[in-house]
This record gives sequence, structure tokens and C-alpha cells, in this order.
Amino acid sequence: MENKKPLILISNDDGYQAKGIRSLVEMVRHLGDIIVCAPEGARSGMACAFSATQPLTLVKRHEEPGLQIWSCNGTPVDCVKMALGELCDGRRPDIVLGGINHGDNGSVNTHYSGTMGVVMEGCMKYIPSVAYSLCDHRDDADFSPLEPYVKAITTRVLREGLPKGVCLNVNFPLLSTLPLPPSTYKGVRICRMACGTWGNEIYKCHHPRGYDYWWMVGSYTNDEPEAEDTDNWALQHGYVAITPTRIDVTAYEAMEQLQDLTALSYVP
Amino acid sequence: MENKKPLILISNDDGYQAKGIRSLVEMVRHLGDIIVCAPEGARSGMACAFSATQPLTLVKRHEEPGLQIWSCNGTPVDCVKMALGELCDGRRPDIVLGGINHGDNGSVNTHYSGTMGVVMEGCMKYIPSVAYSLCDHRDDADFSPLEPYVKAITTRVLREGLPKGVCLNVNFPLLSTLPLPPSTYKGVRICRMACGTWGNEIYKCHHPRGYDYWWMVGSYTNDEPEAEDTDNWALQHGYVAITPTRIDVTAYEAMEQLQDLTALSYVP
Repeated sequence: MENKKPLILISNDDGYQAKGIRSLVEMVRHLGDIIVCAPEGARSGMACAFSATQPLTLVKRHEEPGLQIWSCNGTPVDCVKMALGELCDGRRPDIVLGGINHGDNGSVNTHYSGTMGVVMEGCMKYIPSVAYSLCDHRDDADFSPLEPYVKAITTRVLREGLPKGVCLNVNFPLLSTLPLPPSTYKGVRICRMACGTWGNEIYKCHHPRGYDYWWMVGSYTNDEPEAEDTDNWALQHGYVAITPTRIDVTAYEAMEQLQDLTALSYVP
Repeated sequence: MENKKPLILISNDDGYQAKGIRSLVEMVRHLGDIIVCAPEGARSGMACAFSATQPLTLVKRHEEPGLQIWSCNGTPVDCVKMALGELCDGRRPDIVLGGINHGDNGSVNTHYSGTMGVVMEGCMKYIPSVAYSLCDHRDDADFSPLEPYVKAITTRVLREGLPKGVCLNVNFPLLSTLPLPPSTYKGVRICRMACGTWGNEIYKCHHPRGYDYWWMVGSYTNDEPEAEDTDNWALQHGYVAITPTRIDVTAYEAMEQLQDLTALSYVP
């Protein structure tokens, strides 16, 4: 690899073979040297989990000038840590990209998303990091309408970086579900995370051997559907939603009103 | 169970048999009816992960008036979702408690912690939620110095709740490592998350069968050791650190400077 080109580290939570990550590689490979280190298979819902007790392994899946593809048996966060520690050959990535995820990572999904785990990890290492997600879970989702946006956003972040401790969560609506002319987004909005809730999250089944088991399912509700500054609103109205996302999760606005906790009586 | 007492839901990431969760149950059981739903074994580093593709099972481990203990084969977040959906018998917990964790959950560990996963999940369901962690990884850690604080904080939160979308991350220093009289904390501080970094995170080994594998390890550095308002500083100086933690991770302060992203040229 040539050392003067930017180094782009890519991972996801759908696995190294997913169409979304392969599409992302093709969209950005003209921008620099690419290292993909992604899970062996689907790791949806893995959040920022890492493997505290399991040994990790790497398999090189593909190599050509400017592009290496590795799989790891761990979580999305493991993939980033392994790539930084073992695969970058002393170089430091100029950007970490997550995705393109097959499915929405807006609102509280931010906290469950392995794609966001990838970019939170990059951001915790002070590397500018961007997650891309499309509101389409299908294996054969069409990522092509995202291409100009992915190229423009990645180029801009490579050139100018991001504020310290801030990464980007970029979500794209599914055009075919929108009342719009085909292949048109209305534009891009800088959004806040909507306040939303998952409900009916467990589905009970009975095993033929006689015991109960449950699947995690659920349906999502936007708890503030009228708020026009949220990611959910933007996606529902045909906009690309960019949510700047912070590592520092301190609730500064609550510190004053919690000061009474410092004066509690601790006599049992 | 009697329906007029508060309902307290407890989980952790060290497993239902860990000393930390057993200690927590004993500390708070006079405050209400207790349901424990915790992982079958250690789930450290599981963050907000949930089981998107694995079936979940529950085992009742213990029952007596006012106390049920269940184990679940999933993650800490799975445990909370399963308890809310299946074990609370139509009641809504008045509080969700995580811990007491064997180990520090300050600074960026917030993002990796399964204990924080428990209380983030409770908070995402709009239930007041508190995580307790002790800076001692040992299985036989002594949790008794925490008791008056755990009782006082839990009582206060049961009585007054917490701001919407805010949970508490409470960390206790290990007294024996501090230059203080035995069994004394200096007090309680409301803190922000320190800015810190994990380094040297992977440790390479060679398997006798001829392949390489890695363990996740690493050492933590506080990147702002002089800042006196952080959780790391409080813990290092003998204070109990309470970090109010938010679900909304939007980086509001960065929104203005990222507005240029809405005007990028998207011509390929």
C-alpha cells in the first residue's frame, strides 16, 4: 500500500459479505487505501459490545492493491480494535466508516446498533468516524441512490475532520416507501435523535421438547412524531438524516438538580 | 407479591450468582418487591447488545415472598426486556438497578458496560434507573462499604424519580487502594464522564494447532487527569462518583458547524 493516500477503515454489523459493506467499499475506494475488517456473519444489535472472554481470530478474505478484506469472529467493536492493533501496519486510519447498514439506525437504535458501535469505537480513538445506514433490511437492498451522498460526506470528513468526540450517524430513507419521484431525496438535514420507544419486544414460543423460549422482535414508536428536528421526522419526510453523535453522554443539564445526592444522609 | 410496595427490577452483567448482585439485593430488599433477571454467567463488555438472532430462555432460580430470581441466557439488555415483558405480571417496575458491578464503569467504559446496558434499557423505557459499580474486579470483592450509599441513592430515586431520559452511573472507589482511613469515602460528587482512551487492547497468542488468536485486554488512560469535575478524578481521590447519563446522544453543540453538510454538492 502507498502511504500517502488516506487510509480508510471500514466495518459493519451485517458481516463482511453483506451487500451494504461491499457497496460502501466501491463508493469510497477512489478516496484512499481501504482496509475492511468486518464480522464473519450477522452481528446486528451488538451495540458497543466487545469480546471480553472469547479468543478472536482473523481471516484474510481478499487482497488487491489498495484493498484488504478481513473477517473477524468477534463483534463490530472487536473488528475495529483488531484492525487498529493488527492490520494497519503502523498507519493510523484517517477515517472509520460503518455500514452501509441494512436497516434504520435512527433514534434509540443508535444504542443497539453494531454499525454505531463501529463508529463510536473509531471516535473513542479520536478518528473521524461516520456510520451509514439505509432503512431497508433486505439482503438485496439497492444502495445506489446513496452513492453521491456517501462520496460527498466521506470526502468532506476526510478533508475537514469532525469535532473531537463527535461522530456522524447518517441514515437514508427508503425511496420506494416515500411519496416522491423515484430516486430523489428531498435533501439533507442535520438532526437530533428522536425520542422513541420499542414495545412488544418479546415473542413467546413453545419448543417441541416442552419448554418455552422467546425471540426478540418488537415495534418502534416515535414518541414525538410532530417534532421536525428529529432523525425520524427527516427519514419519514424523504430527507437524508445526519445526526452528530457524542461520546460524552454526561447529562450536563441534570447535574444541578441532582446536587442533593451529594448531601444524602448515609447513616444506615 | 403485594402490589402496593415498589417493584424493583435488578440485573447485571456478571451473572445472577455474582456476589455484587446478591449484595445489591440484600441492600435494597426492604425497599420493595424484587425481581432479579440476570444473565446465566459473565456478560462483561456486552454494552447495550441484545440477541437479535438467538432464542432466549428463562430459568427460575429462587422464589420467596417479595423476591424472585431468574436467569436468562441472553445479554443484560435481554434480561431487562424479558423481565419487563414476561416477569412483572402486569406491573411496571418503579426502578431498574444494575450491578453492583465487579469493576469500574467510569469514562468510556460507560459505552462498553453491560451494567450500563441494563440502566440505559430501563431509562429508554422511561423507568428511573441506577447503575452501581465498584472499582474491584475480584469475585469476592467487599461491597459492604457501599451499603449506606446504595440505600440512600435508591431511596431518593424511588421517591423523587430522575429527569426524563437521564439515568445514573454510580461508581465507588476501592477503599484499600486509597490513602484514606479504612472504610471512609470522602463524600459524593456529581461528575461528568472523563475523556479517556484504551490502548494496547489486543494480545496475540499462537495456538498449538498453528494459527494466531487474540485476547482483548488493554490499559486505560485518563486523557485529562487534571480535570477535577470528572468521574475518574473523583474515584482517584476517594469520592463516590455519580455521573448523570443521557439517552439522547445528539451532539447539539456540533450541529451548527456541520450545517455545511446539508449543502454539499451531490453530483458524482
